[in-house]
Amino acid sequence: MMKLSSRLIQHSRNQLSRKLLYGKDGDVKDMLSLHSFSHRAGISTSGQNIAVKGSIGDRIFAPYTIFKGKAALSVAPMLPTFTKLESGSLVVDRRGSIMLTFMPAIGERKYDRERRQVFSLSATEVGSLISLGADESCEFFHDPSMLTSNAGQVRKSLSIKPHGNGSGYFIALSVVNNLLKSKDNLGVPVTTAEFAVMKTACSFALPHIMGWDRLTNKMPRGTEGQTSMIDRQALSLEWDK
Amino acid sequence: MMKLSSRLIQHSRNQLSRKLLYGKDGDVKDMLSLHSFSHRAGISTSGQNIAVKGSIGDRIFAPYTIFKGKAALSVAPMLPTFTKLESGSLVVDRRGSIMLTFMPAIGERKYDRERRQVFSLSATEVGSLISLGADESCEFFHDPSMLTSNAGQVRKSLSIKPHGNGSGYFIALSVVNNLLKSKDNLGVPVTTAEFAVMKTACSFALPHIMGWDRLTNKMPRGTEGQTSMIDRQALSLEWDK
Amino acid sequence: MMKLSSRLIQHSRNQLSRKLLYGKDGDVKDMLSLHSFSHRAGISTSGQNIAVKGSIGDRIFAPYTIFKGKAALSVAPMLPTFTKLESGSLVVDRRGSIMLTFMPAIGERKYDRERRQVFSLSATEVGSLISLGADESCEFFHDPSMLTSNAGQVRKSLSIKPHGNGSGYFIALSVVNNLLKSKDNLGVPVTTAEFAVMKTACSFALPHIMGWDRLTNKMPRGTEGQTSMIDRQALSLEWDK
Amino acid sequence: MMKLSSRLIQHSRNQLSRKLLYGKDGDVKDMLSLHSFSHRAGISTSGQNIAVKGSIGDRIFAPYTIFKGKAALSVAPMLPTFTKLESGSLVVDRRGSIMLTFMPAIGERKYDRERRQVFSLSATEVGSLISLGADESCEFFHDPSMLTSNAGQVRKSLSIKPHGNGSGYFIALSVVNNLLKSKDNLGVPVTTAEFAVMKTACSFALPHIMGWDRLTNKMPRGTEGQTSMIDRQALSLEWDK
Repeated sequence: MMKLSSRLIQHSRNQLSRKLLYGKDGDVKDMLSLHSFSHRAGISTSGQNIAVKGSIGDRIFAPYTIFKGKAALSVAPMLPTFTKLESGSLVVDRRGSIMLTFMPAIGERKYDRERRQVFSLSATEVGSLISLGADESCEFFHDPSMLTSNAGQVRKSLSIKPHGNGSGYFIALSVVNNLLKSKDNLGVPVTTAEFAVMKTACSFALPHIMGWDRLTNKMPRGTEGQTSMIDRQALSLEWDK
Repeated sequence: MMKLSSRLIQHSRNQLSRKLLYGKDGDVKDMLSLHSFSHRAGISTSGQNIAVKGSIGDRIFAPYTIFKGKAALSVAPMLPTFTKLESGSLVVDRRGSIMLTFMPAIGERKYDRERRQVFSLSATEVGSLISLGADESCEFFHDPSMLTSNAGQVRKSLSIKPHGNGSGYFIALSVVNNLLKSKDNLGVPVTTAEFAVMKTACSFALPHIMGWDRLTNKMPRGTEGQTSMIDRQALSLEWDK
Repeated sequence: MMKLSSRLIQHSRNQLSRKLLYGKDGDVKDMLSLHSFSHRAGISTSGQNIAVKGSIGDRIFAPYTIFKGKAALSVAPMLPTFTKLESGSLVVDRRGSIMLTFMPAIGERKYDRERRQVFSLSATEVGSLISLGADESCEFFHDPSMLTSNAGQVRKSLSIKPHGNGSGYFIALSVVNNLLKSKDNLGVPVTTAEFAVMKTACSFALPHIMGWDRLTNKMPRGTEGQTSMIDRQALSLEWDK
Repeated sequence: MMKLSSRLIQHSRNQLSRKLLYGKDGDVKDMLSLHSFSHRAGISTSGQNIAVKGSIGDRIFAPYTIFKGKAALSVAPMLPTFTKLESGSLVVDRRGSIMLTFMPAIGERKYDRERRQVFSLSATEVGSLISLGADESCEFFHDPSMLTSNAGQVRKSLSIKPHGNGSGYFIALSVVNNLLKSKDNLGVPVTTAEFAVMKTACSFALPHIMGWDRLTNKMPRGTEGQTSMIDRQALSLEWDK
């Protein structure tokens, strides 16, 4: 886990994003580490990952944050990583996700990043969110230590429940950590408009976290006589059976 | 505020866009200044903004304008600006928005740009617009002088209300300016089809004004052996807690 | 109007697109001229349009065609053209559209391109199409000669009407041409699935024909220290009023 | 048909994608051949296809896979191929599709790729899928050998049927192969969330498999004085009639 100094975040309505982003430089970096989604086009050759200096400039930080009385919720996409095979083809190595970050309020317009909790939505969990009916709810369970010796020691559950009056949802994260003997409950009421932003932005992001945005047909440079390979074999699979 | 000479705009059905855009050059520029959305990829180093000559060619003007009897309404996206940190990462500096511009009619097919009024929709307000049910209405309030000594002197409210017969909405802007002792009310009836264009275009634009379109996975140039950095640390945040 | 030799089109289920596209070369060109949507990024300097040799390679032909017993309907997007101002900014010159092309059947799987009729949907008409409810219909009227001495001589109307049983729509084009003393009625039944393709593809295309796809934030090349201009003036318009 | 050695695939919840992708290299290639969607921007000159060495690096593999007790279902887009005419224009040669691949389970978390079956959804069939109501079903029939001497020997049908309780769909593929004297039935229950991912991803992919994503307006490089051709002729077609 990243080392973070204890720090409070304060905002007023208009100066919010500036205050969040232009504190001391260390503060900015801390803040960003939470929301970092970047062009992590992780490429490796034949299964070995290679980190290349100089590409850090690719990181972009643009979370959608909802500030409420008891907590704040940030939503940010995380791109998948790819692995490059010897053939030159790229395969998805680790799927992307939508990262939800909760920070508890500790005063008027002050949020405690030190006590933040995160929950990473998979493509299918994003599918649940974007198909959620006005009166429906959903809940997801994660064990970050699954398949390790600490399995079962940390239990996270995220629930999205509609307000009774059809005016939005309550999104809550519960984290029980037996290792730290801690139990956290963070929740944020989300209006219909804010949920519409989440749905639209997550629908937009879904093909990207799946790696399908790489589908975009490239324009050949016609005037230079360049051509690309034709691979009918893959397309012909069905017909050849 | 920009200095604008008083000027009338006249249009006929087919020649409209040409007339709007090909007046005297000064007129064109004035017109455009209203709707300018551009690749304002505002970049600064370590918090200091740097304006660089030569990039003005990036500006694009493509508002969607609805001309009606008493007023015209233009809708245009405004991209966010980014700030570049020392690390090379980019953070959203100022969020983008959807700019609504109202111009009163002052005769048949004539609109007075001098008396135009603007209202800038945030991402969440765009969320309200695109999730608006057929029988629902919404209203937003802005104080452009908030947090200054003139706070409360200018009050703007934008309302979107359904026609009784389910055939669209009435979109109205009210601006009360105590400093200028002025009060303006501008409204445009919007058909279901026009509102569908607004919804579709604003849904398309939403991830862009949030800065999420930068998510697009870049194709590595496989034949040149270039690779990008892998940053598993960010992705591992949840599991490391 | 383009000169086209009379020609029949014949297809069988699987060989259709190949037959359509690989006839004699002249045939291909004729066919394509109907559906040409291209990167007609028409650019002119200070209002004068300039045609530049060599860019014809940018044209792409990818119509979605529905072949039925009495007629065929092709749907293809047409991009807007832009004009470049002295300042370097680009403004939309002519809006894009969705071009509908009807060809009458003249035998089993044979369509007569010579007697084709076209109807060009504006952004707002596309809004009507994509917001059409399952039981709703819509109709558009065009006069291609509007504002000329031939105004009223050619009347086109396009109607989209639901089948009684909720299984799709009937899309029909009527063209009355007093100059040619002709009257054409062409119609195609469209299934729910085919209409879903039309809706999805037209929703995708809408921001493109409006010119809003140019919104996409460009990635600055961070490692090369390049920066772009910051234009806060436009964004500040609302607050400065 | 590609030669594939018999091979089993085993997965556990977290290590799944890694296991699928990092078996022996040959295994990886086999796996990928199923899901290969790539920038198969097949280009040929005047109807002759030309394969050019070096572009294999363009292939991307990012299927969305649903693993269930009796079978697994993978969904992956296949881009269209284009043919380049002498004029430099590009026409769609072969349409893209969404490839569905079913693999039977042969034990706990083990799937038999050797007995996989594929079904390639056309644009219109994708339209059926994305417009499917909660209580609706659909079924498609393919004959891979249609128009050959083996016509009718292999019959495939894909059905999508809603669960009774509104909690998703059952997607089943039946393949009767008279040549091999085989009959296969493979089915996967798909939750509402998983179907939402399929719908969203297929809606995103639809314009791409149609070739419409090439619509994207290109930014002219303003500072270099480059301009593109203006082709008003195509746009004027309707008005010239």
